Amino acid sequence: MYRNEVRLDFSVNLNPFDMPQSVLGAIQTGLSEIHQYPDPKQQKLREGIAALEAGSFGPEGADPDNIICGNGASELIMAAVHAVMPKKALITAPCYAGYAVALKAADAEVTEYRLKEGLDYELDGEFLECINKDTDMVFIGDPNNPNGKLIRPDLKKAVAAKCEECGAVLVVDECFYPLTDAQSGCSHITDSALHLRAFTKTFAVPGIRIGYMLSRNIAMLDKIRKHLPEWNVSRIAERTGEAAAKVLTETDYLEKSVQMISRERGFLAEKLSELGIKVYPGDTNYLLIRSLPDLYDRLLAKGIMIRRCSNFSGLDDTYYRIAVRRHEDNEELIRTLEEVL
Amino acid sequence: MYRNEVRLDFSVNLNPFDMPQSVLGAIQTGLSEIHQYPDPKQQKLREGIAALEAGSFGPEGADPDNIICGNGASELIMAAVHAVMPKKALITAPCYAGYAVALKAADAEVTEYRLKEGLDYELDGEFLECINKDTDMVFIGDPNNPNGKLIRPDLKKAVAAKCEECGAVLVVDECFYPLTDAQSGCSHITDSALHLRAFTKTFAVPGIRIGYMLSRNIAMLDKIRKHLPEWNVSRIAERTGEAAAKVLTETDYLEKSVQMISRERGFLAEKLSELGIKVYPGDTNYLLIRSLPDLYDRLLAKGIMIRRCSNFSGLDDTYYRIAVRRHEDNEELIRTLEEVL
Repeated sequence: MYRNEVRLDFSVNLNPFDMPQSVLGAIQTGLSEIHQYPDPKQQKLREGIAALEAGSFGPEGADPDNIICGNGASELIMAAVHAVMPKKALITAPCYAGYAVALKAADAEVTEYRLKEGLDYELDGEFLECINKDTDMVFIGDPNNPNGKLIRPDLKKAVAAKCEECGAVLVVDECFYPLTDAQSGCSHITDSALHLRAFTKTFAVPGIRIGYMLSRNIAMLDKIRKHLPEWNVSRIAERTGEAAAKVLTETDYLEKSVQMISRERGFLAEKLSELGIKVYPGDTNYLLIRSLPDLYDRLLAKGIMIRRCSNFSGLDDTYYRIAVRRHEDNEELIRTLEEVL
Repeated sequence: MYRNEVRLDFSVNLNPFDMPQSVLGAIQTGLSEIHQYPDPKQQKLREGIAALEAGSFGPEGADPDNIICGNGASELIMAAVHAVMPKKALITAPCYAGYAVALKAADAEVTEYRLKEGLDYELDGEFLECINKDTDMVFIGDPNNPNGKLIRPDLKKAVAAKCEECGAVLVVDECFYPLTDAQSGCSHITDSALHLRAFTKTFAVPGIRIGYMLSRNIAMLDKIRKHLPEWNVSRIAERTGEAAAKVLTETDYLEKSVQMISRERGFLAEKLSELGIKVYPGDTNYLLIRSLPDLYDRLLAKGIMIRRCSNFSGLDDTYYRIAVRRHEDNEELIRTLEEVL
């Protein structure tokens, strides 16, 4: 319908930086191998991710056993829920809709912790009080979607500790973490939590499904793996992931991406605020904003698509998410907003 | 290790016929679109499969709602088990190992019905007696793996009827059905069963994960869909499936494949029997054979790999599965067997 008319898509939040040549090459290699089954154990892929994530685990580094791979992070969310089969689960509002979809498929009773508008939807300490002995599973986004705010490291640790104390399985969705300013931070993998990552966002390849889960809790990873189908990572995704892990380990691709995103996020936040649009502080490659209920239509009429957030629990039709794109695209968005507002 | 030394791989059972150009083209199209998410509803893909499978549903034809798509048939097996959460399940021995893997992940008690060597491992009527009010889920392979024997249509109907009567969910794994002589048969979709298909075998693309489930039981398909993660079919798999469905609907690709497979299966069966190897009658692109316990090693020493079947429940280390390949490859296998036996 309107797809052909969209000149600029600010609704999808992917790294605006160009994909490295080596990853493109790996995709072609995978393509030349589609007559072969992928490695069901994903050995080389998990070794590559272990090397990439060594720092996340602190001095002792990471082992391939600390990693399981999925057909996108969404498959790992579903498999984790199937492995835990929680009776009661806790999520935030707003957050990525996929947690509730998986939890409800497993008939879990889902409690939403309302993030506070007055705190710009940043996770706050009151969240801890919602975790109790009855809580079987907790999902948090670091940074959260759609607002992109990182969780304070001390609060994240406190959530992990409370979950451990209460016997709740904690999933920390860090799919956008590598694109935040914190990406080069030091050790952050807690003792029992499941940390979710994906190459989808970092390399802007949502058409190739490749995510992974990191944890020190190997017994839980083994349990989750039992709920993943055989050959769940396609040959092409396997090769893409191997090359992606290598690029991230050996080059400054991510640093350069983050520098650009950080600069452009600042540019957008400043210009949007000047236009009277409320911008919530965010730390990654997208921003939650608040404006007129018909802003979506006004922009679409000019060929620009943004993400309506009215279907995020806790938000309404005055909220939108916009991706941080390349400078010329961001300038075009601002110019168009000046016209339509 | 030995991978580089293998000249001919008879262990993987895929269509030996060349992939049509249009499917190759579709894979390239998918590759050019990896920066976009796949369609989470797989609308066009399911419409294509509905057109392809219209005949399977008899005069009324098929609707896209009769179809769900998966990241390979293996994902659909896992999702079906998650949707049913059976306490007690029935499979055959031997059969594809993936059913038991999924069932055991869901803590189901799995009963194996021993197929009879004296009946060449063909499914027989006694199987019906194992389905009772306590049975929650049943898996059968039509044709079965590793022996490749089709189920008699009247028995298949009787199994479906007994499952319906007992409230058991029946999954009929028909991944190899299109490569059997029965592929052009008429309506065979029963009222409540879940029929599993895949393009993996038909187009020899196991590196691209694309399978689907067909059923008149739309409520059950909807329930299973809830246990599939978002974007479970990658963009490349989506495009591949669309082109594959079109090729199978509009061309005689499958008829030609089946003719060749049928001819070559006959050639292999005759020559293997002449060499004193026991060949079990099969109807698709692989054959179960019985020979010396070290036949695998003898052939591998000559660069030919076959599938050992000792890890199939009910079989031992004298059983092997061999794929039906192109004539020159099959001749090479026979020549090599003449040498090593």
